Amino acid sequence: MIHTPTSTFAEFAATLRPQVDAALSRLTTFDAGCPPTLGESIRYSLLAPGKRLRPLLALAAAQACGGSIEEAMPAACAVEMIHCYSLVHDDLPAMDDDDLRRGRPTNHKQYGEGIAVLAGDALLTLAFETLARLQPAETAVRCTTELAHAAGAARLIGGQADDLAQEGKVPGALPAVDRSPAESLALLESIHRRKTGAMLLVSLRLGALAAEADDLRLAALDEYGTRLGLVFQIMDDLLDVRGTEDQMGKRVGKDAARGKLTFPGLLGVEESLRRAQALTAEAVAALGPLGNDAEVLEDLARYVVERNH
Amino acid sequence: MIHTPTSTFAEFAATLRPQVDAALSRLTTFDAGCPPTLGESIRYSLLAPGKRLRPLLALAAAQACGGSIEEAMPAACAVEMIHCYSLVHDDLPAMDDDDLRRGRPTNHKQYGEGIAVLAGDALLTLAFETLARLQPAETAVRCTTELAHAAGAARLIGGQADDLAQEGKVPGALPAVDRSPAESLALLESIHRRKTGAMLLVSLRLGALAAEADDLRLAALDEYGTRLGLVFQIMDDLLDVRGTEDQMGKRVGKDAARGKLTFPGLLGVEESLRRAQALTAEAVAALGPLGNDAEVLEDLARYVVERNH
Repeated sequence: MIHTPTSTFAEFAATLRPQVDAALSRLTTFDAGCPPTLGESIRYSLLAPGKRLRPLLALAAAQACGGSIEEAMPAACAVEMIHCYSLVHDDLPAMDDDDLRRGRPTNHKQYGEGIAVLAGDALLTLAFETLARLQPAETAVRCTTELAHAAGAARLIGGQADDLAQEGKVPGALPAVDRSPAESLALLESIHRRKTGAMLLVSLRLGALAAEADDLRLAALDEYGTRLGLVFQIMDDLLDVRGTEDQMGKRVGKDAARGKLTFPGLLGVEESLRRAQALTAEAVAALGPLGNDAEVLEDLARYVVERNH
Repeated sequence: MIHTPTSTFAEFAATLRPQVDAALSRLTTFDAGCPPTLGESIRYSLLAPGKRLRPLLALAAAQACGGSIEEAMPAACAVEMIHCYSLVHDDLPAMDDDDLRRGRPTNHKQYGEGIAVLAGDALLTLAFETLARLQPAETAVRCTTELAHAAGAARLIGGQADDLAQEGKVPGALPAVDRSPAESLALLESIHRRKTGAMLLVSLRLGALAAEADDLRLAALDEYGTRLGLVFQIMDDLLDVRGTEDQMGKRVGKDAARGKLTFPGLLGVEESLRRAQALTAEAVAALGPLGNDAEVLEDLARYVVERNH
């Protein structure tokens, strides 16, 4: 495949989002052992129109490290499957109890809770089956270890467990309302670092590993990705305050209504935005070692902080 | 590690079950990112006293193929993690709604539904992280592909989805009560082949692959494992009819009470038992190509058909 860098994130996304969607569709064409309703429910959530931010991060990182889009595609699809499974499970009544996602009924509203649990399980399992397609085998194994850690009990799942606890949904756990503001901010950052940050970071790393990146480039992407993750979460919280349901495709103002910790709730809107802008500048600066190849990632950081306001 | 075959399954299990338990405990010692309640809930289910049938199958297959116990241990632990996650999720109110498992409250009864969903997710994720420890990388990748397929939408999860549907828990799906007896038996066998059979079979295959088994031995284990899986399910159904709660550690007679398809329900107790014995003889015969190294597996097949009656 010809290596054709495109300079803006919008151009990159417009070219590659359809390729990601096509690959996700191919990977969820199941054999006869999969009950039709289960297959439909998996595709309902995975193929719903979405930004595909995580796969695009993986592909942009691969390109920034001199690799091909084609080689990195299994990594891109795997991170989107993990993201999608976590949304399906987080939306369940026992968790965040959401009935709207990307402008449509959530998976359990459409197919029932039992199928929604199983669709999430299937997407999680399929992510690892997909990652095993990476070549050579050493790359597949390293990516599996990194993705499982980022999505595991100490990161993505642990962050969600703490999020549940602070909403008072875990018997015996301390809800957020009983903490000091400083404790609340530290907890909020810790939850987001694990829930959102770890997955954005591993998306970049998997793309880079698929491109056989050296340690210098991996370290630069770590610096970039850590900051990007926080910016992303701050902007998401701000959209919940300022956005409309139409823009978000999900219920807004709901975080505040149920006393969920948010950056604007703790820092105010202006300070949250200021912090996001400072982190974006640091993220862009961290890309130095990657040179011109990182133009898409630079533009992407600016896109995240500028969207919808 | 010295290769020391032991001839009976009981001896083999008595020696190796504690080694499996110790390995499972080591693998679930999480870092500070894992909330204590989540870690406790994972260990509550994974380290509960159990038969460890699937890991013992993996280790016995490795031994039957001339491999070491130590090399196959990650495969043994991974299949137990998958088994345990599927029990935690299947017990949820939206699924089989069980409140007792291995003689103790089910995970969601003890920790709440949200944490139970997350504990299952974490075990599923950890299974793949564990499998990535296999050496060489090509073996880890092949085992990942096989385990993900066996545990995926067309096998384990698909079987559970059809099980939910035949209990009338999937909107729009045909419940079992509206099918003919022949259709019901075919569906029951298909559900068990995917839910129970596929995981027993892949346990054997992963152990054999960790021992670098050739295709002849893998084919013999396939013949053996396919039959063992059905025997196991028939005996489980029979225990539900004939066992006491004390023996089973879970509510009995419940399958019949909710109209769930079972072998004794469709074929009667005597015919179910006759079928299990015939399948056991076939399973033992299939082990021919493995010679004396397969003594433990031979004995195990007889143990399954003879337990508790």
